[in-house]
Amino acid sequence: MTGPAPAFTAFALPGIPLIQPGDDLPTIILAALAAAGFTLRDGDVLVIASKIVSKAEGRFVPLETVQPGEAAQAVAAVTGKDPRVVELVLRESRSISRQARHVLVTEHRLGFVSANAGIDASNVDGGSSVLLLPENPDASAQHLRTALHQRTGATVAIVISDTHGRPFRLGNVGVAIGVAGMLALTDLRGQPDLFGKKLEITMQGYADLVASAAHLLCGEADEGRPVILIRGLPYPAGEGRAADLNRDPKLDLYR
Amino acid sequence: MTGPAPAFTAFALPGIPLIQPGDDLPTIILAALAAAGFTLRDGDVLVIASKIVSKAEGRFVPLETVQPGEAAQAVAAVTGKDPRVVELVLRESRSISRQARHVLVTEHRLGFVSANAGIDASNVDGGSSVLLLPENPDASAQHLRTALHQRTGATVAIVISDTHGRPFRLGNVGVAIGVAGMLALTDLRGQPDLFGKKLEITMQGYADLVASAAHLLCGEADEGRPVILIRGLPYPAGEGRAADLNRDPKLDLYR
Repeated sequence: MTGPAPAFTAFALPGIPLIQPGDDLPTIILAALAAAGFTLRDGDVLVIASKIVSKAEGRFVPLETVQPGEAAQAVAAVTGKDPRVVELVLRESRSISRQARHVLVTEHRLGFVSANAGIDASNVDGGSSVLLLPENPDASAQHLRTALHQRTGATVAIVISDTHGRPFRLGNVGVAIGVAGMLALTDLRGQPDLFGKKLEITMQGYADLVASAAHLLCGEADEGRPVILIRGLPYPAGEGRAADLNRDPKLDLYR
Repeated sequence: MTGPAPAFTAFALPGIPLIQPGDDLPTIILAALAAAGFTLRDGDVLVIASKIVSKAEGRFVPLETVQPGEAAQAVAAVTGKDPRVVELVLRESRSISRQARHVLVTEHRLGFVSANAGIDASNVDGGSSVLLLPENPDASAQHLRTALHQRTGATVAIVISDTHGRPFRLGNVGVAIGVAGMLALTDLRGQPDLFGKKLEITMQGYADLVASAAHLLCGEADEGRPVILIRGLPYPAGEGRAADLNRDPKLDLYR
Protein backbone atom coordinates (compact mmCIF):
# COMPACT_ATOMS: atom_id res chain seq x y z
CA MET A 1 0.00 0.00 0.00
CA THR A 2 1.84 3.10 -1.17
CA GLY A 3 1.04 6.51 -2.61
CA PRO A 4 -1.77 8.85 -1.72
CA ALA A 5 -5.16 7.66 -0.52
CA PRO A 6 -7.38 6.63 -3.47
CA ALA A 7 -10.19 9.15 -3.46
CA PHE A 8 -13.04 10.63 -5.44
CA THR A 9 -15.14 13.75 -5.10
CA ALA A 10 -18.82 14.05 -6.01
CA PHE A 11 -20.25 17.49 -6.84
CA ALA A 12 -23.93 18.33 -7.34
CA LEU A 13 -24.02 20.80 -10.19
CA PRO A 14 -26.04 23.86 -9.28
CA GLY A 15 -28.23 25.74 -11.70
CA ILE A 16 -29.67 22.97 -13.87
CA PRO A 17 -32.94 24.52 -15.13
CA LEU A 18 -36.26 22.71 -15.40
CA ILE A 19 -35.86 20.59 -18.51
CA GLN A 20 -38.35 20.81 -21.39
CA PRO A 21 -38.98 18.40 -24.27
CA GLY A 22 -36.36 18.96 -26.94
CA ASP A 23 -33.80 20.54 -24.63
CA ASP A 24 -30.23 19.63 -25.52
CA LEU A 25 -28.78 18.04 -22.39
CA PRO A 26 -25.12 18.27 -23.46
CA THR A 27 -25.49 22.04 -23.85
CA ILE A 28 -27.25 22.39 -20.51
CA ILE A 29 -24.75 20.20 -18.67
CA LEU A 30 -21.73 21.99 -20.17
CA ALA A 31 -23.23 25.36 -19.20
CA ALA A 32 -23.80 24.17 -15.62
CA LEU A 33 -20.26 22.79 -15.42
CA ALA A 34 -18.83 26.09 -16.69
CA ALA A 35 -20.96 28.14 -14.28
CA ALA A 36 -19.64 26.05 -11.39
CA GLY A 37 -16.05 26.48 -12.58
CA PHE A 38 -15.51 22.95 -13.88
CA THR A 39 -13.90 21.87 -17.15
CA LEU A 40 -14.73 18.29 -18.09
CA ARG A 41 -11.70 15.97 -17.84
CA ASP A 42 -10.87 12.49 -19.02
CA GLY A 43 -12.05 10.03 -16.41
CA ASP A 44 -14.88 12.16 -15.06
CA VAL A 45 -18.20 10.45 -14.43
CA LEU A 46 -21.52 12.23 -14.84
CA VAL A 47 -24.53 10.76 -13.11
CA ILE A 48 -27.75 12.03 -14.64
CA ALA A 49 -31.17 11.57 -13.06
CA SER A 50 -33.35 9.66 -15.51
CA LYS A 51 -36.10 12.20 -15.02
CA ILE A 52 -34.29 14.95 -16.94
CA VAL A 53 -33.38 12.53 -19.72
CA SER A 54 -37.04 11.56 -20.00
CA LYS A 55 -38.13 15.19 -20.04
CA ALA A 56 -35.62 16.14 -22.73
CA GLU A 57 -36.84 13.16 -24.76
CA GLY A 58 -40.45 14.29 -24.37
CA ARG A 59 -41.60 11.12 -22.60
CA PHE A 60 -44.67 12.84 -21.15
CA VAL A 61 -48.05 11.18 -21.55
CA PRO A 62 -51.20 13.25 -20.87
CA LEU A 63 -53.43 11.01 -18.80
CA GLU A 64 -56.57 12.11 -20.69
CA THR A 65 -55.18 10.37 -23.79
CA VAL A 66 -54.92 6.97 -22.07
CA GLN A 67 -57.72 4.39 -22.40
CA PRO A 68 -57.23 1.69 -19.78
CA GLY A 69 -57.87 -1.82 -21.05
CA GLU A 70 -59.41 -4.73 -19.17
CA ALA A 71 -56.12 -5.90 -17.69
CA ALA A 72 -55.35 -2.41 -16.41
CA GLN A 73 -58.83 -2.10 -14.90
CA ALA A 74 -58.34 -5.38 -13.05
CA VAL A 75 -54.94 -4.39 -11.70
CA ALA A 76 -56.25 -0.95 -10.75
CA ALA A 77 -59.00 -2.61 -8.72
CA VAL A 78 -56.42 -4.63 -6.77
CA THR A 79 -53.90 -1.84 -6.29
CA GLY A 80 -56.18 1.17 -5.92
CA LYS A 81 -54.11 3.02 -8.51
CA ASP A 82 -55.38 5.21 -11.37
CA PRO A 83 -56.36 2.79 -14.19
CA ARG A 84 -54.75 5.09 -16.76
CA VAL A 85 -51.44 4.99 -14.91
CA VAL A 86 -51.76 1.22 -14.57
CA GLU A 87 -52.37 0.98 -18.33
CA LEU A 88 -49.09 2.82 -18.95
CA VAL A 89 -47.25 0.68 -16.41
CA LEU A 90 -48.44 -2.48 -18.18
CA ARG A 91 -47.47 -1.11 -21.60
CA GLU A 92 -43.98 -0.42 -20.26
CA SER A 93 -43.66 -3.88 -18.66
CA ARG A 94 -43.09 -7.49 -19.64
CA SER A 95 -44.91 -8.95 -16.66
CA ILE A 96 -46.31 -8.23 -13.23
CA SER A 97 -44.08 -9.34 -10.36
CA ARG A 98 -46.29 -8.43 -7.38
CA GLN A 99 -49.50 -6.51 -6.93
CA ALA A 100 -51.23 -5.51 -3.71
CA ARG A 101 -53.00 -2.48 -2.29
CA HIS A 102 -50.87 0.58 -3.28
CA VAL A 103 -48.17 -1.71 -4.72
CA LEU A 104 -47.48 -2.64 -8.34
CA VAL A 105 -44.09 -4.18 -9.07
CA THR A 106 -43.30 -5.25 -12.61
CA GLU A 107 -40.52 -6.51 -14.78
CA HIS A 108 -39.91 -3.49 -16.97
CA ARG A 109 -39.43 -3.91 -20.72
CA LEU A 110 -35.79 -2.89 -20.04
CA GLY A 111 -35.41 -5.99 -17.86
CA PHE A 112 -35.24 -4.65 -14.32
CA VAL A 113 -37.85 -5.13 -11.59
CA SER A 114 -39.27 -1.94 -10.12
CA ALA A 115 -42.38 -0.24 -8.81
CA ASN A 116 -44.78 1.34 -11.32
CA ALA A 117 -42.38 0.79 -14.25
CA GLY A 118 -40.53 3.89 -13.13
CA ILE A 119 -43.43 6.09 -14.18
CA ASP A 120 -43.28 9.36 -12.34
CA ALA A 121 -46.23 11.54 -11.44
CA SER A 122 -44.30 13.95 -9.23
CA ASN A 123 -42.20 16.88 -10.41
CA VAL A 124 -43.94 16.73 -13.77
CA ASP A 125 -46.53 19.39 -14.51
CA GLY A 126 -49.10 19.39 -11.78
CA GLY A 127 -50.48 15.91 -12.36
CA SER A 128 -52.26 15.91 -15.73
CA SER A 129 -49.28 14.17 -17.39
CA VAL A 130 -46.97 11.44 -16.25
CA LEU A 131 -43.40 10.82 -17.30
CA LEU A 132 -42.16 7.49 -18.67
CA LEU A 133 -38.55 6.34 -18.39
CA PRO A 134 -36.31 7.09 -21.37
CA GLU A 135 -37.01 4.88 -24.38
CA ASN A 136 -33.50 3.38 -24.34
CA PRO A 137 -31.38 4.70 -21.47
CA ASP A 138 -28.20 2.88 -22.50
CA ALA A 139 -28.46 4.57 -25.90
CA SER A 140 -29.22 7.91 -24.25
CA ALA A 141 -26.09 7.54 -22.11
CA GLN A 142 -23.99 6.68 -25.14
CA HIS A 143 -25.40 9.63 -27.06
CA LEU A 144 -24.58 12.01 -24.22
CA ARG A 145 -21.07 10.58 -23.85
CA THR A 146 -20.37 10.99 -27.55
CA ALA A 147 -21.74 14.54 -27.65
CA LEU A 148 -19.65 15.58 -24.65
CA HIS A 149 -16.56 14.07 -26.22
CA GLN A 150 -17.17 15.86 -29.49
CA ARG A 151 -17.60 19.21 -27.78
CA THR A 152 -14.86 18.98 -25.14
CA GLY A 153 -12.46 16.24 -26.18
CA ALA A 154 -12.91 14.60 -22.77
CA THR A 155 -13.52 10.88 -22.46
CA VAL A 156 -16.03 10.46 -19.67
CA ALA A 157 -18.44 7.84 -18.35
CA ILE A 158 -22.17 8.38 -18.02
CA VAL A 159 -24.60 6.75 -15.61
CA ILE A 160 -28.32 7.45 -15.96
CA SER A 161 -29.76 6.81 -12.52
CA ASP A 162 -33.15 5.94 -11.19
CA THR A 163 -34.50 5.33 -7.69
CA HIS A 164 -35.60 1.84 -6.72
CA GLY A 165 -37.05 0.27 -3.64
CA ARG A 166 -36.01 -3.28 -2.86
CA PRO A 167 -37.19 -6.44 -1.16
CA PHE A 168 -36.06 -7.02 2.44
CA ARG A 169 -34.74 -3.52 3.01
CA LEU A 170 -36.50 -0.21 3.59
CA GLY A 171 -35.51 2.94 1.77
CA ASN A 172 -34.83 3.68 -1.84
CA VAL A 173 -31.37 3.49 -3.36
CA GLY A 174 -29.84 4.63 -6.63
CA VAL A 175 -29.59 2.22 -9.54
CA ALA A 176 -28.13 2.56 -13.01
CA ILE A 177 -30.64 2.22 -15.84
CA GLY A 178 -28.27 3.58 -18.50
CA VAL A 179 -24.50 3.28 -18.72
CA ALA A 180 -21.83 4.37 -21.20
CA GLY A 181 -18.06 4.19 -20.95
CA MET A 182 -17.99 2.10 -17.78
CA LEU A 183 -18.43 -1.55 -16.92
CA ALA A 184 -21.77 -1.84 -15.17
CA LEU A 185 -20.83 -5.12 -13.49
CA THR A 186 -17.29 -5.74 -12.21
CA ASP A 187 -16.24 -9.35 -12.19
CA LEU A 188 -13.82 -10.19 -9.40
CA ARG A 189 -13.83 -13.93 -10.09
CA GLY A 190 -10.45 -15.48 -9.63
CA GLN A 191 -8.73 -12.47 -8.16
CA PRO A 192 -6.76 -13.59 -5.13
CA ASP A 193 -7.78 -12.46 -1.69
CA LEU A 194 -5.28 -11.28 0.93
CA PHE A 195 -4.13 -14.85 1.63
CA GLY A 196 -3.94 -15.93 -1.98
CA LYS A 197 -6.92 -18.29 -2.06
CA LYS A 198 -9.25 -18.00 -4.99
CA LEU A 199 -12.29 -15.88 -4.35
CA GLU A 200 -15.60 -17.48 -5.04
CA ILE A 201 -17.68 -15.80 -7.72
CA THR A 202 -17.89 -12.16 -6.73
CA MET A 203 -19.29 -9.42 -8.86
CA GLN A 204 -19.80 -5.80 -7.90
CA GLY A 205 -22.80 -3.87 -9.18
CA TYR A 206 -20.42 -1.04 -9.94
CA ALA A 207 -22.73 1.28 -11.86
CA ASP A 208 -25.35 0.86 -9.13
CA LEU A 209 -22.75 1.87 -6.54
CA VAL A 210 -22.05 4.97 -8.62
CA ALA A 211 -25.75 5.80 -8.82
CA SER A 212 -26.12 5.35 -5.06
CA ALA A 213 -23.11 7.57 -4.35
CA ALA A 214 -24.70 10.30 -6.50
CA HIS A 215 -28.02 9.91 -4.69
CA LEU A 216 -26.32 11.07 -1.50
CA LEU A 217 -26.34 14.54 -3.06
CA CYS A 218 -29.21 14.70 -5.50
CA GLY A 219 -32.09 14.23 -3.08
CA GLU A 220 -35.55 13.31 -4.25
CA ALA A 221 -37.74 16.22 -3.31
CA ASP A 222 -37.45 19.89 -4.23
CA GLU A 223 -33.69 20.05 -4.34
CA GLY A 224 -33.33 19.93 -8.09
CA ARG A 225 -29.85 18.43 -8.34
CA PRO A 226 -30.21 16.06 -11.25
CA VAL A 227 -26.56 16.07 -12.42
CA ILE A 228 -23.68 14.87 -10.26
CA LEU A 229 -20.04 15.12 -11.36
CA ILE A 230 -17.75 12.46 -9.88
CA ARG A 231 -14.06 13.19 -10.25
CA GLY A 232 -11.10 10.98 -9.38
CA LEU A 233 -12.98 7.68 -9.25
CA PRO A 234 -10.81 4.75 -10.45
CA TYR A 235 -13.77 3.22 -12.29
CA PRO A 236 -13.56 0.27 -14.68
CA ALA A 237 -13.69 1.84 -18.13
CA GLY A 238 -15.34 -0.29 -20.79
CA GLU A 239 -18.42 -0.92 -22.85
CA GLY A 240 -20.87 -1.75 -20.10
CA ARG A 241 -24.64 -1.58 -20.37
CA ALA A 242 -27.17 -1.19 -17.60
CA ALA A 243 -28.81 -4.34 -18.91
CA ASP A 244 -25.75 -6.25 -17.65
CA LEU A 245 -27.12 -5.68 -14.14
CA ASN A 246 -30.39 -7.54 -14.76
CA ARG A 247 -30.47 -11.02 -13.28
CA ASP A 248 -31.85 -13.69 -15.60
CA PRO A 249 -35.36 -14.39 -14.23
CA LYS A 250 -34.70 -18.13 -14.58
CA LEU A 251 -31.72 -17.76 -12.19
CA ASP A 252 -33.57 -15.64 -9.66
CA LEU A 253 -34.89 -17.37 -6.54
CA TYR A 254 -37.19 -14.47 -5.69
CA ARG A 255 -39.36 -14.12 -8.82
CA MET B 1 -30.03 27.30 -6.09
CA THR B 2 -27.19 29.42 -4.80
CA GLY B 3 -23.74 28.96 -3.35
CA PRO B 4 -21.10 26.40 -4.22
CA ALA B 5 -21.92 22.95 -5.51
CA PRO B 6 -22.80 20.58 -2.62
CA ALA B 7 -20.02 18.03 -2.61
CA PHE B 8 -18.31 15.31 -0.66
CA THR B 9 -14.99 13.54 -0.97
CA ALA B 10 -14.35 9.88 -0.14
CA PHE B 11 -10.80 8.77 0.74
CA ALA B 12 -9.63 5.17 1.17
CA LEU B 13 -7.21 5.25 4.09
CA PRO B 14 -3.94 3.56 3.21
CA GLY B 15 -1.89 1.52 5.62
CA ILE B 16 -4.56 -0.24 7.68
CA PRO B 17 -2.73 -3.36 8.92
CA LEU B 18 -4.22 -6.84 9.08
CA ILE B 19 -6.43 -6.72 12.14
CA GLN B 20 -6.01 -9.24 14.98
CA PRO B 21 -8.40 -10.16 17.79
CA GLY B 22 -8.16 -7.57 20.54
CA ASP B 23 -6.79 -4.82 18.32
CA ASP B 24 -8.06 -1.38 19.25
CA LEU B 25 -9.72 -0.03 16.12
CA PRO B 26 -9.89 3.62 17.27
CA THR B 27 -6.10 3.60 17.76
CA ILE B 28 -5.51 1.96 14.38
CA ILE B 29 -7.89 4.29 12.53
CA LEU B 30 -6.46 7.42 14.14
CA ALA B 31 -2.92 6.28 13.22
CA ALA B 32 -3.98 5.70 9.59
CA LEU B 33 -5.70 9.09 9.44
CA ALA B 34 -2.60 10.80 10.83
CA ALA B 35 -0.27 8.94 8.43
CA ALA B 36 -2.44 10.12 5.51
CA GLY B 37 -2.39 13.70 6.78
CA PHE B 38 -5.98 13.87 8.02
CA THR B 39 -7.28 15.28 11.29
CA LEU B 40 -10.78 14.08 12.11
CA ARG B 41 -13.38 16.86 11.88
CA ASP B 42 -16.97 17.34 13.00
CA GLY B 43 -19.25 15.98 10.29
CA ASP B 44 -16.81 13.39 8.94
CA VAL B 45 -18.18 9.94 8.19
CA LEU B 46 -16.08 6.80 8.59
CA VAL B 47 -17.22 3.70 6.74
CA ILE B 48 -15.65 0.59 8.25
CA ALA B 49 -15.73 -2.84 6.59
CA SER B 50 -17.48 -5.23 8.95
CA LYS B 51 -14.66 -7.71 8.46
CA ILE B 52 -12.15 -5.69 10.47
CA VAL B 53 -14.70 -5.09 13.22
CA SER B 54 -15.32 -8.84 13.38
CA LYS B 55 -11.60 -9.56 13.50
CA ALA B 56 -10.96 -7.02 16.25
CA GLU B 57 -13.84 -8.58 18.19
CA GLY B 58 -12.35 -12.04 17.76
CA ARG B 59 -15.34 -13.47 15.89
CA PHE B 60 -13.31 -16.33 14.42
CA VAL B 61 -14.63 -19.86 14.70
CA PRO B 62 -12.24 -22.76 14.00
CA LEU B 63 -14.21 -25.16 11.85
CA GLU B 64 -12.86 -28.20 13.68
CA THR B 65 -14.76 -27.07 16.77
CA VAL B 66 -18.15 -27.11 14.99
CA GLN B 67 -20.44 -30.18 15.20
CA PRO B 68 -23.13 -29.87 12.53
CA GLY B 69 -26.58 -30.92 13.73
CA GLU B 70 -29.29 -32.67 11.73
CA ALA B 71 -30.74 -29.48 10.29
CA ALA B 72 -27.33 -28.34 9.10
CA GLN B 73 -26.66 -31.75 7.54
CA ALA B 74 -29.93 -31.55 5.62
CA VAL B 75 -29.24 -28.02 4.35
CA ALA B 76 -25.67 -28.98 3.45
CA ALA B 77 -27.02 -31.82 1.33
CA VAL B 78 -29.22 -29.40 -0.62
CA THR B 79 -26.68 -26.62 -0.97
CA GLY B 80 -23.46 -28.58 -1.30
CA LYS B 81 -21.87 -26.42 1.38
CA ASP B 82 -19.62 -27.52 4.24
CA PRO B 83 -22.00 -28.79 6.97
CA ARG B 84 -19.94 -27.02 9.63
CA VAL B 85 -20.31 -23.69 7.85
CA VAL B 86 -24.05 -24.37 7.43
CA GLU B 87 -24.30 -25.08 11.16
CA LEU B 88 -22.78 -21.66 11.90
CA VAL B 89 -25.05 -19.97 9.34
CA LEU B 90 -28.12 -21.51 11.01
CA ARG B 91 -26.92 -20.48 14.48
CA GLU B 92 -26.55 -16.90 13.22
CA SER B 93 -29.98 -16.90 11.55
CA ARG B 94 -33.65 -16.70 12.46
CA SER B 95 -34.88 -18.59 9.42
CA ILE B 96 -33.96 -19.85 5.97
CA SER B 97 -35.20 -17.68 3.12
CA ARG B 98 -34.03 -19.71 0.11
CA GLN B 99 -31.79 -22.72 -0.37
CA ALA B 100 -30.54 -24.26 -3.59
CA ARG B 101 -27.32 -25.70 -4.96
CA HIS B 102 -24.52 -23.32 -3.85
CA VAL B 103 -27.08 -20.88 -2.43
CA LEU B 104 -28.15 -20.35 1.19
CA VAL B 105 -30.03 -17.14 1.94
CA THR B 106 -31.26 -16.54 5.47
CA GLU B 107 -32.83 -13.94 7.68
CA HIS B 108 -29.93 -13.08 9.94
CA ARG B 109 -30.47 -12.74 13.70
CA LEU B 110 -29.81 -9.02 13.12
CA GLY B 111 -32.89 -8.89 10.87
CA PHE B 112 -31.48 -8.50 7.36
CA VAL B 113 -31.66 -11.09 4.57
CA SER B 114 -28.31 -12.16 3.15
CA ALA B 115 -26.28 -15.06 1.83
CA ASN B 116 -24.53 -17.33 4.32
CA ALA B 117 -25.39 -15.07 7.29
CA GLY B 118 -22.46 -12.90 6.27
CA ILE B 119 -20.00 -15.61 7.32
CA ASP B 120 -16.72 -15.09 5.56
CA ALA B 121 -14.24 -17.79 4.66
CA SER B 122 -12.01 -15.56 2.51
CA ASN B 123 -9.34 -13.19 3.78
CA VAL B 124 -9.37 -15.03 7.09
CA ASP B 125 -6.49 -17.33 7.88
CA GLY B 126 -6.15 -19.83 5.12
CA GLY B 127 -9.48 -21.56 5.55
CA SER B 128 -9.39 -23.42 8.87
CA SER B 129 -11.44 -20.71 10.56
CA VAL B 130 -14.38 -18.63 9.42
CA LEU B 131 -15.36 -15.17 10.55
CA LEU B 132 -18.82 -14.29 11.87
CA LEU B 133 -20.31 -10.81 11.62
CA PRO B 134 -19.86 -8.58 14.67
CA GLU B 135 -22.05 -9.55 17.61
CA ASN B 136 -23.89 -6.20 17.62
CA PRO B 137 -22.71 -3.91 14.82
CA ASP B 138 -24.88 -0.94 15.89
CA ALA B 139 -23.24 -1.12 19.32
CA SER B 140 -19.79 -1.50 17.71
CA ALA B 141 -20.44 1.62 15.63
CA GLN B 142 -21.56 3.56 18.69
CA HIS B 143 -18.52 2.41 20.66
CA LEU B 144 -16.19 3.52 17.87
CA ARG B 145 -17.95 6.87 17.56
CA THR B 146 -17.68 7.52 21.29
CA ALA B 147 -14.03 6.51 21.43
CA LEU B 148 -13.13 8.76 18.50
CA HIS B 149 -14.99 11.66 20.10
CA GLN B 150 -13.20 11.14 23.40
CA ARG B 151 -9.79 11.10 21.76
CA THR B 152 -10.23 13.87 19.18
CA GLY B 153 -13.24 15.96 20.21
CA ALA B 154 -14.73 15.42 16.74
CA THR B 155 -18.38 14.45 16.34
CA VAL B 156 -18.49 11.97 13.47
CA ALA B 157 -20.83 9.35 12.05
CA ILE B 158 -19.92 5.67 11.67
CA VAL B 159 -21.24 3.17 9.15
CA ILE B 160 -20.18 -0.47 9.44
CA SER B 161 -20.60 -1.88 5.96
CA ASP B 162 -21.10 -5.32 4.53
CA THR B 163 -21.49 -6.64 1.00
CA HIS B 164 -24.84 -8.05 -0.08
CA GLY B 165 -26.20 -9.59 -3.23
CA ARG B 166 -29.82 -8.87 -4.07
CA PRO B 167 -32.81 -10.32 -5.86
CA PHE B 168 -33.42 -9.18 -9.44
CA ARG B 169 -30.05 -7.49 -9.93
CA LEU B 170 -26.58 -8.90 -10.46
CA GLY B 171 -23.57 -7.64 -8.55
CA ASN B 172 -22.99 -6.98 -4.89
CA VAL B 173 -23.55 -3.60 -3.32
CA GLY B 174 -22.63 -2.07 0.02
CA VAL B 175 -25.12 -2.09 2.86
CA ALA B 176 -24.99 -0.69 6.37
CA ILE B 177 -25.14 -3.28 9.15
CA GLY B 178 -24.08 -0.86 11.89
CA VAL B 179 -24.77 2.86 12.18
CA ALA B 180 -24.01 5.57 14.74
CA GLY B 181 -24.54 9.31 14.58
CA MET B 182 -26.56 9.24 11.36
CA LEU B 183 -30.14 8.47 10.40
CA ALA B 184 -30.06 5.15 8.56
CA LEU B 185 -33.38 5.80 6.84
CA THR B 186 -34.33 9.28 5.62
CA ASP B 187 -38.03 9.95 5.55
CA LEU B 188 -39.05 12.34 2.78
CA ARG B 189 -42.78 11.94 3.35
CA GLY B 190 -44.64 15.15 2.92
CA GLN B 191 -41.78 17.22 1.58
CA PRO B 192 -42.99 19.16 -1.44
CA ASP B 193 -41.72 18.32 -4.88
CA LEU B 194 -40.72 20.97 -7.41
CA PHE B 195 -44.36 21.81 -8.15
CA GLY B 196 -45.53 21.82 -4.56
CA LYS B 197 -47.56 18.60 -4.60
CA LYS B 198 -47.11 16.25 -1.70
CA LEU B 199 -44.70 13.47 -2.36
CA GLU B 200 -45.99 9.98 -1.82
CA ILE B 201 -44.18 8.00 0.86
CA THR B 202 -40.52 8.19 -0.04
CA MET B 203 -37.71 7.00 2.12
CA GLN B 204 -34.04 6.88 1.25
CA GLY B 205 -31.84 4.06 2.51
CA TYR B 206 -29.29 6.69 3.39
CA ALA B 207 -26.79 4.58 5.33
CA ASP B 208 -26.89 2.00 2.52
CA LEU B 209 -26.09 4.75 0.01
CA VAL B 210 -23.11 5.70 2.19
CA ALA B 211 -21.93 2.09 2.32
CA SER B 212 -22.25 1.76 -1.47
CA ALA B 213 -20.33 5.00 -2.05
CA ALA B 214 -17.52 3.63 0.13
CA HIS B 215 -17.52 0.33 -1.77
CA LEU B 216 -16.47 2.23 -4.89
CA LEU B 217 -13.05 2.52 -3.25
CA CYS B 218 -12.66 -0.40 -0.87
CA GLY B 219 -12.74 -3.24 -3.36
CA GLU B 220 -13.40 -6.79 -2.28
CA ALA B 221 -10.27 -8.69 -3.20
CA ASP B 222 -6.66 -8.06 -2.20
CA GLU B 223 -6.87 -4.31 -2.00
CA GLY B 224 -7.09 -4.03 1.75
CA ARG B 225 -8.93 -0.72 2.05
CA PRO B 226 -11.33 -1.37 4.88
CA VAL B 227 -11.69 2.21 6.15
CA ILE B 228 -13.14 5.02 4.03
CA LEU B 229 -13.27 8.64 5.21
CA ILE B 230 -16.12 10.69 3.71
CA ARG B 231 -15.76 14.42 4.20
CA GLY B 232 -18.24 17.18 3.32
CA LEU B 233 -21.33 14.99 3.08
CA PRO B 234 -24.48 16.82 4.26
CA TYR B 235 -25.77 13.70 5.99
CA PRO B 236 -28.78 13.56 8.31
CA ALA B 237 -27.26 13.49 11.79
CA GLY B 238 -29.27 11.58 14.36
CA GLU B 239 -29.64 8.41 16.36
CA GLY B 240 -30.14 5.95 13.52
CA ARG B 241 -29.61 2.20 13.73
CA ALA B 242 -28.92 -0.21 10.89
CA ALA B 243 -31.93 -2.18 12.11
CA ASP B 244 -34.10 0.70 10.87
CA LEU B 245 -33.32 -0.53 7.33
CA ASN B 246 -34.86 -3.96 7.84
CA ARG B 247 -38.27 -4.37 6.26
CA ASP B 248 -40.83 -6.07 8.50
CA PRO B 249 -41.15 -9.60 7.05
CA LYS B 250 -44.95 -9.33 7.33
CA LEU B 251 -44.83 -6.28 5.02
CA ASP B 252 -42.47 -7.82 2.48
CA LEU B 253 -44.01 -9.23 -0.70
CA TYR B 254 -40.87 -11.22 -1.50
CA ARG B 255 -40.36 -13.38 1.59
